[in-house]
Amino acid sequence: MKPHHYWMEKALQLAREAARLGEVPVGAVLVCGDTLIATAHNRTESLQDPTAHAEMLCITAATTHLRSKYLHDCTLYVTLEPCPMCAGALSWAQIGTLVYAAPDPQRGFTRFQPSLLHPKTQVLTGPLATEALTLLKAFFQERRK
Amino acid sequence: MKPHHYWMEKALQLAREAARLGEVPVGAVLVCGDTLIATAHNRTESLQDPTAHAEMLCITAATTHLRSKYLHDCTLYVTLEPCPMCAGALSWAQIGTLVYAAPDPQRGFTRFQPSLLHPKTQVLTGPLATEALTLLKAFFQERRK
Repeated sequence: MKPHHYWMEKALQLAREAARLGEVPVGAVLVCGDTLIATAHNRTESLQDPTAHAEMLCITAATTHLRSKYLHDCTLYVTLEPCPMCAGALSWAQIGTLVYAAPDPQRGFTRFQPSLLHPKTQVLTGPLATEALTLLKAFFQERRK
Repeated sequence: MKPHHYWMEKALQLAREAARLGEVPVGAVLVCGDTLIATAHNRTESLQDPTAHAEMLCITAATTHLRSKYLHDCTLYVTLEPCPMCAGALSWAQIGTLVYAAPDPQRGFTRFQPSLLHPKTQVLTGPLATEALTLLKAFFQERRK
């Protein structure tokens, strides 16, 4: 099994690609075992669709590909703590494991009670958090100029 | 301006259509002023996509149509209280008004704190609640047989 760091690096590459395109730099990859099932970055600007977060695009791509509404045996890697919308979607998909890099104290799902995730979902945080946050901060500083 | 009951009746018709197709009977319509912008019912079964709730499909259709990520001047009518995923999406869209028919004590967004909606969103409940709940109960009773 590849380490979490390996997959988060791929998610971070997608976040960097998002930044180049003027999208909020958040990337995600969805993995089952050692198989990559879906990749996405935020596309809310290009699609003008507030639901087009990296996590949502990954979930829809993966469930369509697997022909299953459920992702019990899968892991989602995402560079930023999911928002309530994405956490709610991960709950419906009953995702096996969620790994996120940087926390989001303003919009992150962990601010909310009761938990927005499915009770069986495992949560890990931390890999490449500094890199993910640095990318986000640089993006928003540039936009505020 | 048409009354709330008028638009909720349209949402209820969509919910009935969903039931006929074997989908969870929830319908939604999105309105700006007196103009119908988007309609949808739940499609999680046919798409095998847990994010394909009526509200999500309406938001994506409306923002794409209006070429705006925001729906400040719009009202979403939905036959069941939105889940956290849909409430989170409505928050990103900064929807002006949310009107829902039946409460959802198990999965509804009002169970969660702090509020999942945008602070400026107005919320109304009640029109056609009995009809919407009757449809949902009949659907799940049939599925449990």
